[in-house]
Amino acid sequence: MNKYENGLKIREAVIGKEASKLVSDSLADIAPILDQKTLLEFDEAKTRNILDMKQREMITITTLLTQGDTSNQLNIHIQGALNVGITRDEIIETFVHCLPYVGFPRVLNAVSVAKTVFGKNKHCE
Amino acid sequence: MNKYENGLKIREAVIGKEASKLVSDSLADIAPILDQKTLLEFDEAKTRNILDMKQREMITITTLLTQGDTSNQLNIHIQGALNVGITRDEIIETFVHCLPYVGFPRVLNAVSVAKTVFGKNKHCE
Amino acid sequence: MNKYENGLKIREAVIGKEASKLVSDSLADIAPILDQKTLLEFDEAKTRNILDMKQREMITITTLLTQGDTSNQLNIHIQGALNVGITRDEIIETFVHCLPYVGFPRVLNAVSVAKTVFGKNKHCE
Amino acid sequence: MNKYENGLKIREAVIGKEASKLVSDSLADIAPILDQKTLLEFDEAKTRNILDMKQREMITITTLLTQGDTSNQLNIHIQGALNVGITRDEIIETFVHCLPYVGFPRVLNAVSVAKTVFGKNKHCE
Amino acid sequence: MNKYENGLKIREAVIGKEASKLVSDSLADIAPILDQKTLLEFDEAKTRNILDMKQREMITITTLLTQGDTSNQLNIHIQGALNVGITRDEIIETFVHCLPYVGFPRVLNAVSVAKTVFGKNKHCE
Amino acid sequence: MNKYENGLKIREAVIGKEASKLVSDSLADIAPILDQKTLLEFDEAKTRNILDMKQREMITITTLLTQGDTSNQLNIHIQGALNVGITRDEIIETFVHCLPYVGFPRVLNAVSVAKTVFGKNKHCE
Repeated sequence: MNKYENGLKIREAVIGKEASKLVSDSLADIAPILDQKTLLEFDEAKTRNILDMKQREMITITTLLTQGDTSNQLNIHIQGALNVGITRDEIIETFVHCLPYVGFPRVLNAVSVAKTVFGKNKHCE
Repeated sequence: MNKYENGLKIREAVIGKEASKLVSDSLADIAPILDQKTLLEFDEAKTRNILDMKQREMITITTLLTQGDTSNQLNIHIQGALNVGITRDEIIETFVHCLPYVGFPRVLNAVSVAKTVFGKNKHCE
Repeated sequence: MNKYENGLKIREAVIGKEASKLVSDSLADIAPILDQKTLLEFDEAKTRNILDMKQREMITITTLLTQGDTSNQLNIHIQGALNVGITRDEIIETFVHCLPYVGFPRVLNAVSVAKTVFGKNKHCE
Repeated sequence: MNKYENGLKIREAVIGKEASKLVSDSLADIAPILDQKTLLEFDEAKTRNILDMKQREMITITTLLTQGDTSNQLNIHIQGALNVGITRDEIIETFVHCLPYVGFPRVLNAVSVAKTVFGKNKHCE
Repeated sequence: MNKYENGLKIREAVIGKEASKLVSDSLADIAPILDQKTLLEFDEAKTRNILDMKQREMITITTLLTQGDTSNQLNIHIQGALNVGITRDEIIETFVHCLPYVGFPRVLNAVSVAKTVFGKNKHCE
Repeated sequence: MNKYENGLKIREAVIGKEASKLVSDSLADIAPILDQKTLLEFDEAKTRNILDMKQREMITITTLLTQGDTSNQLNIHIQGALNVGITRDEIIETFVHCLPYVGFPRVLNAVSVAKTVFGKNKHCE
């Protein structure tokens, strides 16, 4: 299994098969190189196993929240956080922990995305 | 022990007694309310025990790296990360994990601060 | 009247009863702690009476404009600015004053939100 | 021809007559001074002829991508980039070149806007 | 008196003669156009007299605090705020008011610059 | 010649041998993976030859200026811009072109770095 295939396997495990396919499809015509590069990132992250997938997704949703204008990416990675076993309470607490560092607007935006993602996962409770 | 005293105890445990005193001293004349507010944050973080201190400091250094113009705060919280038991390799890997989300400049700035902090902790190795 | 009740009274006065209820309702299921924290902020702001409510809302819309990705919050606080007595011309001039510091995109985004909010207040002219 | 008329002529040439009119119309009631100021900017950019219009639009879409929360402006200036003769491949490569400096979220957001703009120009291929 | 002369007079009144000369001198060799453009901004701000100079400097230090990486500019405009009659307490309260919107790092950075500026003005107390 | 060797050759050509070695040395002990990753970026940029090196460095200094808190990186890439043949006037005009999009603070910070870099290249005039 080469790096791209391994990256795909990990990406599917983290963000879900459907979301992974959506990423590929949306980039296929216009910038396929970006799709390949995300695969390499997922492959690498797993290879350097200093942090586990729960820690990685917690870091990911933190950096996305902080950066702003990332609702599409938060959407994918809040689902990713759930997929790798982070609980809803831990996701919200991650966001609340960021409050003194970034203020309400960034945190409330992220909570709003979380609400949508949690709503879609209702049947899984 | 009231909330301020408890917050102080936790802040001293996380960022160190000396750094905690420096924060208080630097704000004493000009904006003591901000010192009190940081104490409340440390008190609260501990009270809502959904995340442990290692997770919290990992989130903190991630949000600081992402935000930019935070070298003073990274300085304090990279030391905080070491103090609560995050290893050097985990700190650097946290920064490297952020690379695909924020790019080189933010990550290299954070690594540069980490180098200074790790240097000061050499005797502890 | 405790701090939360006082904060609620001030929040209702600034952003309006309806918007205040929307904030509470949207956070009730997912992160009620954030609702309580905004109440404390409104309570505090009034207690430290160094700045009046007009100055505070002017500062608020300035920081929101500058930060970016804050259209939801600008929506609420442009209404808040009107509610505490800032005129439309003063709101727009606040945004125009920011132009040399932040550039057109942030300013035009804020003006666009203002246009929507002013439109909703037409009957009050 | 005065500076405003010259600026209008250049703005129409770069972003298109229709988009130029939309900018004017959207600001006419609320902040006409901002419309006039954009005209002055277009006039000036042409006067200081150190960079050509292709270089200017390449710089513009780069700064917009980097800043975030600029989808409206990217929409206008990706079309502008096409209008002054930058190819689709060059636009996408400009975005991909930014990846190591700003990370995936900013780049993917810009690519997503480009996809919409390219779609509207299909008949011109 | 033309626009540049009027702008210079206002800039000197706001940020001080010495700081105004430093801005000109630092840009003289490398980008004199930027010096001229700041003069136009000061001229314009006064002409559109919807906000007074105290309000303008309060907005200015707010947008600079929020943006980050602006210690040079904050240095000049915190002095400017004092020069137009904003008190130290009002400056600090402006920064504290931003806390729930932007978080501690931006606010503490601004307070740190204020401390330096206030120190230089000690003889004026 | 493998990708790392090719990347090194290009990095040396763009930012200079000395600066390239400084990057490697500063990361050797703490995060060598980041040094390797920058080499891959330089290798790739050259391979995808849709944009030439002058265009790439112009994009690079634009994204760095816009992002803020990037004086170290601007230092390296303003020199890089000179090395690949962008003139001083073109560099300054690139920064001035960004002014209406990002405002004075970011532009003045970049001009200040350019002044230092240009000063070091005085003997080459």
